[in-house]
Amino acid sequence: MATKQLGIVTTQYFQCAEPPDELVLKSGERLGPITIAYETYGPLNPEKTNAILICHALTGDAHAAGFHENDSKPGWWDTMIGPGKPFDTDRYFIICANVIGSCKGSTGPSSVNPKTGKPYSLNFPVITIQDMVNAQKLLIDHLGISKLLCVTGGSMGGMQSLTWAVMYPQMIHSVIAIATNYRHNALQIAFHEVGRQAIMSDPDWQNGDYYGKSIPARGLAVSRMIGHITYMSEKSMEEKFGRKLFSKERVGYDFSVDFEVSKYLRYRGDSFVQRFDANSYLYITKALDYFDLTEERNLDAVFKNIQSKFLVISFTSDWLYPPHQSMKIVRALKINDVDVSYIEINSSYGHDAFLMENAGQAHVIEHFLARMLLERKNTAMP
Amino acid sequence: MATKQLGIVTTQYFQCAEPPDELVLKSGERLGPITIAYETYGPLNPEKTNAILICHALTGDAHAAGFHENDSKPGWWDTMIGPGKPFDTDRYFIICANVIGSCKGSTGPSSVNPKTGKPYSLNFPVITIQDMVNAQKLLIDHLGISKLLCVTGGSMGGMQSLTWAVMYPQMIHSVIAIATNYRHNALQIAFHEVGRQAIMSDPDWQNGDYYGKSIPARGLAVSRMIGHITYMSEKSMEEKFGRKLFSKERVGYDFSVDFEVSKYLRYRGDSFVQRFDANSYLYITKALDYFDLTEERNLDAVFKNIQSKFLVISFTSDWLYPPHQSMKIVRALKINDVDVSYIEINSSYGHDAFLMENAGQAHVIEHFLARMLLERKNTAMP
Repeated sequence: MATKQLGIVTTQYFQCAEPPDELVLKSGERLGPITIAYETYGPLNPEKTNAILICHALTGDAHAAGFHENDSKPGWWDTMIGPGKPFDTDRYFIICANVIGSCKGSTGPSSVNPKTGKPYSLNFPVITIQDMVNAQKLLIDHLGISKLLCVTGGSMGGMQSLTWAVMYPQMIHSVIAIATNYRHNALQIAFHEVGRQAIMSDPDWQNGDYYGKSIPARGLAVSRMIGHITYMSEKSMEEKFGRKLFSKERVGYDFSVDFEVSKYLRYRGDSFVQRFDANSYLYITKALDYFDLTEERNLDAVFKNIQSKFLVISFTSDWLYPPHQSMKIVRALKINDVDVSYIEINSSYGHDAFLMENAGQAHVIEHFLARMLLERKNTAMP
Repeated sequence: MATKQLGIVTTQYFQCAEPPDELVLKSGERLGPITIAYETYGPLNPEKTNAILICHALTGDAHAAGFHENDSKPGWWDTMIGPGKPFDTDRYFIICANVIGSCKGSTGPSSVNPKTGKPYSLNFPVITIQDMVNAQKLLIDHLGISKLLCVTGGSMGGMQSLTWAVMYPQMIHSVIAIATNYRHNALQIAFHEVGRQAIMSDPDWQNGDYYGKSIPARGLAVSRMIGHITYMSEKSMEEKFGRKLFSKERVGYDFSVDFEVSKYLRYRGDSFVQRFDANSYLYITKALDYFDLTEERNLDAVFKNIQSKFLVISFTSDWLYPPHQSMKIVRALKINDVDVSYIEINSSYGHDAFLMENAGQAHVIEHFLARMLLERKNTAMP
């Protein structure tokens, strides 16, 4: 369908919240200076009414689409972003920013603490989804955008999107919240807790102070293996692997790799270690576990001042953020007379479904955005 | 209901398969001498027609019911076994044996290898569910029982029960298979693979050679935490813990324990380390992953020679061994005209449901066993 390509893209860096303008975090701590890594695709129109903010998930980054110079793999949501794609770069100005706490260009625990000249490690303050959103807001303000046409994302990206709509209702024309929850529940916390324990149990973790030394590779790999299981479904695992053996005629009767599913998980664990920082994994999982829009009031009350239109998407086989959690979001929005569409998409890919090429998701997003753009054109004051 | 108690019980030890009568394992390796730890409850009738073999799950043991001297906690299935209980010790002779490979009295990797005078460690041969059953058969033969009234168990115990009925059809009058599968699938293997990696990544594991030194406590604890999550359900976790904080008014904004669910998992992990051997965990999870009744023929063909009556039980919220897997067992039995009853019990307790006090499970088992005993009385040749 799309013959044009986004082509080569580059990451930009925004220096913001320098002292004395530090970011005041939810914990009361202060963080600054802050760098935010971000990418943009497509042109911002003169009225600045076509900007869409894409929020990434746990281990994502600012590189959502197109190719970096000399890279063979495109950005993490390239199936969805580009000319003629649902997030159509011929029509929209797309922004994707790396969250603070991460290790992909934005300030996080592996960044150098200007007060000590060494990496922050565990001196980095514990951040929240709200803090990530406040950091993104500095970038959006810097870009001169007073109202976003849409904020969207899956999983943690969905949580940021909901948080934007709650914290800055007047800035958000619409939200597409995908495969997400309005608060982390016990099962979601449990999986993260085990992942963190795996990292913190690794002797190489050294209480976070491992930069320039051996990294806690084994613990981080185990963490990622756990995560990866939760992103798939029983059915997708069965279809992809079943009991297939890895380069063997029969099982080995030993503790080497027998099954393809084992090989795959070990591979995913080991390759993750090459691309992600263990402390960032601790900080971001903690931010997710702390996420609870209802910590002070119930969800109906939380959504009272919402001024955005909503599209909420869930996937049938997603057992990590199952449809019934999305439905609670929809119900609370409905009670507040918010214009909300909900779609539960049939998929066997589990939580990962939102990252896969999915015609159902692409189609509803494309049409929702076209409607939003039309609304904005009719109402925006240039 | 039950006013009588089973009271104090003791574990017995059966020395079997001593050289030259070693057990020939599925791998082709030989194992011997073998000790089997077992307990029995209730009287064996003179005709020896009232014997029931209970098979335990991954980390279980021979102590299924009653109390050990000075113990405050009864055996692992005490809610189900005893006078007036479903496995009624006034009517049945109940046997429970620890599987080989375990660390609870039967021969396993922590046992002393008579050839070296040191613990087997990784020189212990990799065993299978079939090998566990063959070891149990030595015990049943030793007890002079030619036909068991019933073989039963949940989870891995269910797999042993199915295996008994397939390998020794003439010895099994009936089977109660609970919360189980006829082969380990990709998801089940995946969780075990991560658990094993957690143990084997622990530097204290030392390639299995840690006896008398530091044990791989951190890795084993992480393993158990993963397992424990899979034994519960989203709902039971939410009802038990939700986002409740552990002895705090608000979250700590640090990496200490915030949530009760985290505290609980850490506690379960740490206490498991006190009672279970890491190498046994590796061996038994591997036996489970190797379990596949259909490795040579399809399930219809596998069940062709079955001579037992079946009761198959699953639980609605069990996502580790979900009902659809039990239903496949039932379907293949039906195709072979086996007398099979199936019940899917409504429970929010997940896989652990079979271990909990559950009136539904108790009721169907009680009635099924009464029918089996009547049949045996009418047909047995004393």
